[in-house]
Amino acid sequence: MTATDYFDVVIVGAGPSGLMATTWMARTGIKTLLIEKKSGRTLAGHADGLESRTFEILNSFGFGESIWMESNKTIDVCLWSSSGGYLRRDSVSPNHEPGLSRFQEATLGQGRIEEHLLNFVKQHSSVKIKWETVPISLKISDGKCDDPGSYPIEMRNDCSERTIRARYLVGCDGAHSWVRKRLGLFLEGDQTPNGHWGVLDCIPITDFPDIRKRCIIKSDAGNLMIIPREKKLVRFYIQVSPLVAARFKVDYHSSTLIAVLRDILQPYTFNTLHIEWSTIYTIGQRLCSTFSVMNRIFLAGDAVHTHSPKAGQGMNVSMQDSYNLGWKLSSVLRGVATSEILHTYQTERLPVAERLIAFDRRMCFGICSTEKDPSENANDRFSNLRPTLSEENSCAAGIGVVYGPSILMTSSSDCDSAANVEDTQSPFPQSKHHLATCITVGGRMPSQRVLCQSDSRPWHLQDRLVSTGQWHLIIFGGDITDGIQKTRLNQLTNSLSHPESLINSINLSDGSPVGSLAAYLVHTAPREKVEFMELPAILRPFDKEIGYDYSRVFADNASSGEGCGEAYQGYGVSSRGCMVLVRPDQHVAFIGALEDTNALYAFFTRFAVTK
Amino acid sequence: MTATDYFDVVIVGAGPSGLMATTWMARTGIKTLLIEKKSGRTLAGHADGLESRTFEILNSFGFGESIWMESNKTIDVCLWSSSGGYLRRDSVSPNHEPGLSRFQEATLGQGRIEEHLLNFVKQHSSVKIKWETVPISLKISDGKCDDPGSYPIEMRNDCSERTIRARYLVGCDGAHSWVRKRLGLFLEGDQTPNGHWGVLDCIPITDFPDIRKRCIIKSDAGNLMIIPREKKLVRFYIQVSPLVAARFKVDYHSSTLIAVLRDILQPYTFNTLHIEWSTIYTIGQRLCSTFSVMNRIFLAGDAVHTHSPKAGQGMNVSMQDSYNLGWKLSSVLRGVATSEILHTYQTERLPVAERLIAFDRRMCFGICSTEKDPSENANDRFSNLRPTLSEENSCAAGIGVVYGPSILMTSSSDCDSAANVEDTQSPFPQSKHHLATCITVGGRMPSQRVLCQSDSRPWHLQDRLVSTGQWHLIIFGGDITDGIQKTRLNQLTNSLSHPESLINSINLSDGSPVGSLAAYLVHTAPREKVEFMELPAILRPFDKEIGYDYSRVFADNASSGEGCGEAYQGYGVSSRGCMVLVRPDQHVAFIGALEDTNALYAFFTRFAVTK
Ligand SMILES: Cc1cc2nc3c(=O)[nH]c(=O)nc-3n(C[C@H](O)[C@H](O)[C@H](O)COP(=O)(O)OP(=O)(O)OC[C@H]3O[C@@H](n4cnc5c(N)ncnc54)[C@H](O)[C@@H]3O)c2cc1C
Ligand SMILES: Cc1cc2nc3c(=O)[nH]c(=O)nc-3n(C[C@H](O)[C@H](O)[C@H](O)COP(=O)(O)OP(=O)(O)OC[C@H]3O[C@@H](n4cnc5c(N)ncnc54)[C@H](O)[C@@H]3O)c2cc1C
Repeated sequence: MTATDYFDVVIVGAGPSGLMATTWMARTGIKTLLIEKKSGRTLAGHADGLESRTFEILNSFGFGESIWMESNKTIDVCLWSSSGGYLRRDSVSPNHEPGLSRFQEATLGQGRIEEHLLNFVKQHSSVKIKWETVPISLKISDGKCDDPGSYPIEMRNDCSERTIRARYLVGCDGAHSWVRKRLGLFLEGDQTPNGHWGVLDCIPITDFPDIRKRCIIKSDAGNLMIIPREKKLVRFYIQVSPLVAARFKVDYHSSTLIAVLRDILQPYTFNTLHIEWSTIYTIGQRLCSTFSVMNRIFLAGDAVHTHSPKAGQGMNVSMQDSYNLGWKLSSVLRGVATSEILHTYQTERLPVAERLIAFDRRMCFGICSTEKDPSENANDRFSNLRPTLSEENSCAAGIGVVYGPSILMTSSSDCDSAANVEDTQSPFPQSKHHLATCITVGGRMPSQRVLCQSDSRPWHLQDRLVSTGQWHLIIFGGDITDGIQKTRLNQLTNSLSHPESLINSINLSDGSPVGSLAAYLVHTAPREKVEFMELPAILRPFDKEIGYDYSRVFADNASSGEGCGEAYQGYGVSSRGCMVLVRPDQHVAFIGALEDTNALYAFFTRFAVTK
Repeated sequence: MTATDYFDVVIVGAGPSGLMATTWMARTGIKTLLIEKKSGRTLAGHADGLESRTFEILNSFGFGESIWMESNKTIDVCLWSSSGGYLRRDSVSPNHEPGLSRFQEATLGQGRIEEHLLNFVKQHSSVKIKWETVPISLKISDGKCDDPGSYPIEMRNDCSERTIRARYLVGCDGAHSWVRKRLGLFLEGDQTPNGHWGVLDCIPITDFPDIRKRCIIKSDAGNLMIIPREKKLVRFYIQVSPLVAARFKVDYHSSTLIAVLRDILQPYTFNTLHIEWSTIYTIGQRLCSTFSVMNRIFLAGDAVHTHSPKAGQGMNVSMQDSYNLGWKLSSVLRGVATSEILHTYQTERLPVAERLIAFDRRMCFGICSTEKDPSENANDRFSNLRPTLSEENSCAAGIGVVYGPSILMTSSSDCDSAANVEDTQSPFPQSKHHLATCITVGGRMPSQRVLCQSDSRPWHLQDRLVSTGQWHLIIFGGDITDGIQKTRLNQLTNSLSHPESLINSINLSDGSPVGSLAAYLVHTAPREKVEFMELPAILRPFDKEIGYDYSRVFADNASSGEGCGEAYQGYGVSSRGCMVLVRPDQHVAFIGALEDTNALYAFFTRFAVTK
């Protein structure tokens, strides 16, 4: 019998999705092994588009701002087409819809993003990374899967004689996923005929005027996409014939792609002395309809969905997959949630993948098709594409993802009595959407700027909802200097902090944030009229080493010269207030009135393992 | 004879001021030796206040944003006083005046700031740092000072037998400056009787409600200042009696300071389990009236001015001193400017130091005095302090510094004919202030947000004026789709780019930015009506390796959802436009009409060494 190493989680593949899963494990201190075939991070090429939701997620771990600063912002989309051999600009329009997020679409090489994630992971000791390693065997002991303490997964890799046993396995090993294949699962769907595209990353020398804007060009000589990148880099997606594709696959000469690019871009000139990367791919949208097996093995990212890079979504959706999975795994492993919550990984993420694939089809069709929509302006080659582009700006950017009702998500009702259940055992607490009309149950909590009560500093509320595995209860208390609102707030906080209450039964005594609940207050009283020390103790947790926590109470007041004071309006919350429960992944799980503690408790009762 | 090492510049002292001088030398590739007594950067304590102008300067080297993100923002100032033994909050007011800078006052330990500067310096090879080293001898050969190529300074240090010869020496060795003493110079002024203050950096455990705000407390038990810092740190300045001061100087027990602090803060409680640093100092404002000797040796920072830390200015002014000096030294050393410009170091910085000292006196008086202004509200112990606090918010923050006319600075006139000199030899070209009513000649160029013509990305114009040693000519061209403005712009750029013009005579062929001139355009035409490739070539410099420079042309247009479009208004520039010459340190040297090329050339003729 060989020696055995035990891990809570084994992750295969250190691409964006595997690194995001690893980031969660590092953050929550879960004993994890990450196995990667390559010898290190991506050095050039691959994905480079970051959507606003991805920035929000990266920022929730503390390194989003640095990536944001490093990235190139793509503000405009220009559509160009040729008619009669003459290339002309048809339109310029914004590349994002203002107000949805404080971030927006931007570009930065996948390798740089991987580096930021790796730097974070390296600061935490619970994760071990094995480079240049592939798994060679995988067994799962069916019988053991129901026992939460068991290690039903048994693996071996090519670098060691030792056996690896794990409680959970996450396959993030890309489109040709070994894990997926071992499970007998397939990607379904197929390649589009003639859908061959070359990719070229370089520093262009050109007189094409829109080279620093995102461009979609439909020329008589073919289709082209231009994506400006960080520093002076630009990515070109060049549609090529099967013949050119075949030639490139033999010699890998970028000159083959450049020749086509030059043709399309005429009369503008193109040259480059710095080529960073080039490749070719075939369009195809494929999906695996099973994201998890026995609630012990999970697949994420390209391992379960592949599509064209046209919409710049792959890296984003892949990271968002494992961002959804990570905290759930940690919660189960730390014994604060039943393993039933893991089923929501597939129910939440499969529909996202399905929509992504459908969206990508429309996008590819819009970009590749040269047919004109007869009902529209006959000269507009983009009539098929325009609606898809605006869809991209709003819902497709990850911001629009809304998870449906489940054990981890209430359903939403517009009726005031909905959540007012007297029966704490009610299996289906409902949210009262009308109490926060601009917050969507199931969607990620939007951000509004508020002032910290203790130092008057403006904060994006979202910046406080950091990813630690903790749940966030945001109490919109209204004007708490008003007697009625003050009483309502006190009743709520008394209930929450009662010795036998929810918070006391779910907050772990080991001080780990995973699965615990933090309460925040956003009030509308003039902040100088509110005394911090007179607020309910639950809103200013005390630590005997470092004193009070000053970061839980916020005022929706105007700042001196920096805006603010519009959060209630932005959230659609009235002066009577409400409470909003936000999951560890920033998705809104429940909205209720300040009195709806029973519904809140009923919600947690469904999955929380209490002391 | 011992062996000799040659350096262009030797800097003594690696505090904030020495590191800023070194940063310039690193940036401009000047062969430099930095000598520091200590074994590394400051680890705890010392200065921690950063003013907005300092952030702008740090950002001009590319690392201001990271320091900004790391720092604590101090938004409010609270004044507390006790009457009849009862401590009460008299007022809360903003700690900065909105609109002056996009940064504002913030706090971060001096050691962290030094670390950022050191990290920058280490990326450049022209600088050598010797830790744990002090100079032991210094000679200057008078006769050689006029010869620009000579190394008139001869030094030895305690770590090597070798002789050091340098062209220039910068003494940044703090209040007890060895360099200053060797030059026979003194700090003049004296200590205030009873002005003893303890300093304590710790994580407080307290029920004092304003602990995360800047507070000035005048209690019957003494005076106290509270400065919240990064993480959970707070700095306390505690006024102590001579007796307590003497006791502390013997045993260095922070408990001595804590006892006084507790007395002052009553009835609030105070405790701490994490003390980072503590010290004691005596108030004193002292100034050296000579900042440079023979135009070869320069003193900067605490070496020439010391004062109380009350206003949090020392580190700022010290860095601003050597920020003023650095590019001038580099310009002379790179042979693009006459050494005469070095005289402006003292003429520009001595008045700043004088004002600082006078300001610090008022501040200390306002904080320490317990006398009430009889003409004012008899209960207001702060009547002496309030005007000083508002002064701090506007002019004292470095933003308000205006350099007077000199070889490097035009004088300003409100008369339209002023700069319109036909005679290019005119020794005193004047600026036309009325063409940009919100830009002050001699002051730093204020920032407004503009959109990059090539990618529509909003930029703070100041972010483009990076510190490289280059001069910036900002052309406000107005609506350049209008025939008249277009002609005016073309005439200006034709003149600038004429083979025998200024730009060609001052821009070095080695490609170094030091002393060269970069032209920028900020226009008001709708940006989609402006074709990049049709703009004058000087506004889109071409590099045969990496193509066009897309970062020189901006539109004062509204963005989609991110403001902008108010730069002309913000600068007080009319639709006829103007040109603004900005020095390498972001101070405005000249404002003229688009036709005033003669005045512009006359200005440069005074100091530029042309090819
Ligand atoms: C040319 C191109 C352009 C793209 N552009 C974009 C874009 O602009 N925006 C965007 O969002 N997406 C884009 N994508 C898609 C994006 O790269 C992928 O969607 C994303 O990388 C998927 O992340 P992942 O972690 O799931 O898989 P991958 O990034 O493929 O990572 C899988 C990892 O697993 C490793 N691995 C594989 N098999 C094994 C094994 N048996 N054992 C151990 N390790 C293994 C691999 O070496 C790899 O590191 C693009 C892709 C390409 C090819
Ligand atoms: C308690 C305290 C609080 C302060 N608070 C603030 C504040 O909030 N904000 C603010 O702006 N300022 C503050 N200051 C002032 C600030 O620290 C100084 O103004 C600033 O550090 C001056 O920078 P400098 O580089 O000129 O001198 P210093 O920081 O003193 O640096 C001088 C350097 O030279 C070295 N040196 C000295 N002699 C020699 C020698 N012979 N050979 C080699 N090296 C030598 C020293 O070791 C030191 O590293 C405070 C100072 C103190 C003491």
